[in-house]
Amino acid sequence: MNVLVINCGSSSLKYQLINSETEAVLAKGLCERIGIEGSRLVYQPAGGEKEITESPMPTHKEAIQMVLDALVNEKSGVIASLSEVGAVGHRVVHGGEKFASSAVITEEMLAAVEECNDLAPLHNPANLIGIRACQELMPNVPMVGVFDTAFHQTMPEKAYMYGLPYEYYKKYKIRRYGFHGTSHSFVSKELASFLGLDINNSKIIVCHLGNGASVSAVVNGKSVDTSMGLTPLEGLVMGTRSGDIDPAILEFLAHKENMDIDELMSMLNKKSGVYGLSDYISSDFRDLEDAAEKGDENAIRARAVFNYRVAKYIGGYVAAMNGVDAIAFTAGLGENDTLVRRDIMAYLGYLGIELDEENNKLRGKDVLISTPDSKVKVAVIPTNEELAICRETVALI
Amino acid sequence: MNVLVINCGSSSLKYQLINSETEAVLAKGLCERIGIEGSRLVYQPAGGEKEITESPMPTHKEAIQMVLDALVNEKSGVIASLSEVGAVGHRVVHGGEKFASSAVITEEMLAAVEECNDLAPLHNPANLIGIRACQELMPNVPMVGVFDTAFHQTMPEKAYMYGLPYEYYKKYKIRRYGFHGTSHSFVSKELASFLGLDINNSKIIVCHLGNGASVSAVVNGKSVDTSMGLTPLEGLVMGTRSGDIDPAILEFLAHKENMDIDELMSMLNKKSGVYGLSDYISSDFRDLEDAAEKGDENAIRARAVFNYRVAKYIGGYVAAMNGVDAIAFTAGLGENDTLVRRDIMAYLGYLGIELDEENNKLRGKDVLISTPDSKVKVAVIPTNEELAICRETVALI
Repeated sequence: MNVLVINCGSSSLKYQLINSETEAVLAKGLCERIGIEGSRLVYQPAGGEKEITESPMPTHKEAIQMVLDALVNEKSGVIASLSEVGAVGHRVVHGGEKFASSAVITEEMLAAVEECNDLAPLHNPANLIGIRACQELMPNVPMVGVFDTAFHQTMPEKAYMYGLPYEYYKKYKIRRYGFHGTSHSFVSKELASFLGLDINNSKIIVCHLGNGASVSAVVNGKSVDTSMGLTPLEGLVMGTRSGDIDPAILEFLAHKENMDIDELMSMLNKKSGVYGLSDYISSDFRDLEDAAEKGDENAIRARAVFNYRVAKYIGGYVAAMNGVDAIAFTAGLGENDTLVRRDIMAYLGYLGIELDEENNKLRGKDVLISTPDSKVKVAVIPTNEELAICRETVALI
Repeated sequence: MNVLVINCGSSSLKYQLINSETEAVLAKGLCERIGIEGSRLVYQPAGGEKEITESPMPTHKEAIQMVLDALVNEKSGVIASLSEVGAVGHRVVHGGEKFASSAVITEEMLAAVEECNDLAPLHNPANLIGIRACQELMPNVPMVGVFDTAFHQTMPEKAYMYGLPYEYYKKYKIRRYGFHGTSHSFVSKELASFLGLDINNSKIIVCHLGNGASVSAVVNGKSVDTSMGLTPLEGLVMGTRSGDIDPAILEFLAHKENMDIDELMSMLNKKSGVYGLSDYISSDFRDLEDAAEKGDENAIRARAVFNYRVAKYIGGYVAAMNGVDAIAFTAGLGENDTLVRRDIMAYLGYLGIELDEENNKLRGKDVLISTPDSKVKVAVIPTNEELAICRETVALI
């Protein structure tokens, strides 16, 4: 079966068409600037050239129509007709406490997603718009929602409760949810399978390090803790997000800089992280590495703080699980940045971890980067959220 | 020499008179409700009865005058005249980046403390008022300021920088400072000495668990990280303080509950922690334990979250130091709550730590609570901030 995987934002939309039997990507691309002047479709069939088509997309419906047209296009299309799309898998950011797993899309299910909008006011409404548009254009195709939060719903109360008045949990469900769940789930399973570990008897840490970044602790295949919280702002220092800070810093800055809470949040989400820490050199680690190599102190600082924070989270989760069998690095930085992995692993000698410097240079595949006699195994496991969504979708319909 | 140790708050003042040679406390007590109706002095000479004197104390000067009068009182005093007070040691909360150690009090030094007022607007001005009042009443007695932050000034940049725009560090010195430094310093040294560790070749974690609570990582006698931050709000779940939260929770609550930043901070400092988490049962762990024993879910939750957070911080600091030799528990909870220690240590088996259940029942003295063959040693080390201030004071004058 071919599964169309859709990741819909407020003004953009990423898609992949995947053959669920071979797990091959037939075509992929994105729609940019939906509802804004200058909107365009990027489309790339497997093995073919990337095509860019500029065309107005006043709403997500026109965007998805263009994707479907491209997929069946006589010249560069990859399927003969839309009847070859067997299902659609939609990424949905926030499932609150309502979704502990993926769910077939029904009217009832969509109402429940809508009830989670408050928890992700930027993302969930956009996800819903994408789902509605797909339903209009493909009314008879089964669809599944795959939640970023669902994998972490197995966290115990001690991990998901904040030290806040309990009334806010009762009233608003303020708690840790965690994100990147599809990736943490996919990578923890791949890691166990790659290492020949019994997932049902394993303690695993997954470091999903990209522009957004989170760490999770996974016991017997179930998430027991993760660094992102109510929102994706908490935890690690990220590309432009602060991660953990003393909450009293907000009071200090509100008074000193005369900023209101929305301005403060915008600063924490967009001007912070390694971008802010490096005094605005870049949120891209490649730029920071280039600058650090030339001795730039701002870049050196940003990288050091990033790595140190990851190492502390790993250490914290080893305690949370009372031990660890294996650690995975994944996502943009985790898969490609050899220095980040080296510098983080340098903290972990006490676990009996030693870096295999040669293997650490390899890219683009599952690879063991700890030495063969390391007590705790460390591997790079490329993530594939679209494939994970495809698999979840097929499993449910 | 007799050293008067003063810990001055905005409307209260604690004191001890300590003989620095024998390290015996000659007298101790506090002034309550300074500047408020119903002010009173509590005074207790060593081995004697507690005396309570109600008397107006419009300012700290009258309060300190009453302390001095009590110390030389013919009946219950412990010294013949004020000439027997050789020095005064003042606790000062925030020394910013200006004080990496205790300092003899001079006009220049006080000006530098004043420059740190912004960082501790509730505490530093009160500390300064106490110092000024003492100077007026004992103009020729040498005095020393001992800072809560000084011990942590050895933290490396990677530990003290937040993932925030660097400009805020340059402009306002927003960074992690840490608190309870006098206690972390005292306890880490006592722990090394108690265990026969060479402090200059040691990795130690100190858990200062009281109503305020913090953990520190100490390498070779120097603090390299600690859980409190710019303010004492960050880190562990405390009696009434939240500790770490997703900063975006503030935005959520600001909009939902129509709270401004000052109301939010008041909630995080006074209504949160185990008090808030237990749905307002109590900030006192004895009450929570009583309730938990009766099966109260709110109390069970609060204790579980508290212990889990401490364990994660310990684990994080083991990674920060790439190993650990010994762990100390101190302060009200750390010294007296056998269940807290047991439940935290239960996470740490992977470090080769095992609880000595019999020793864990002992109180009031340095005691090893890990089994003799535990790889990492765990001990209860009663803290004594007043004695630490006395020692610092004598060392400097």
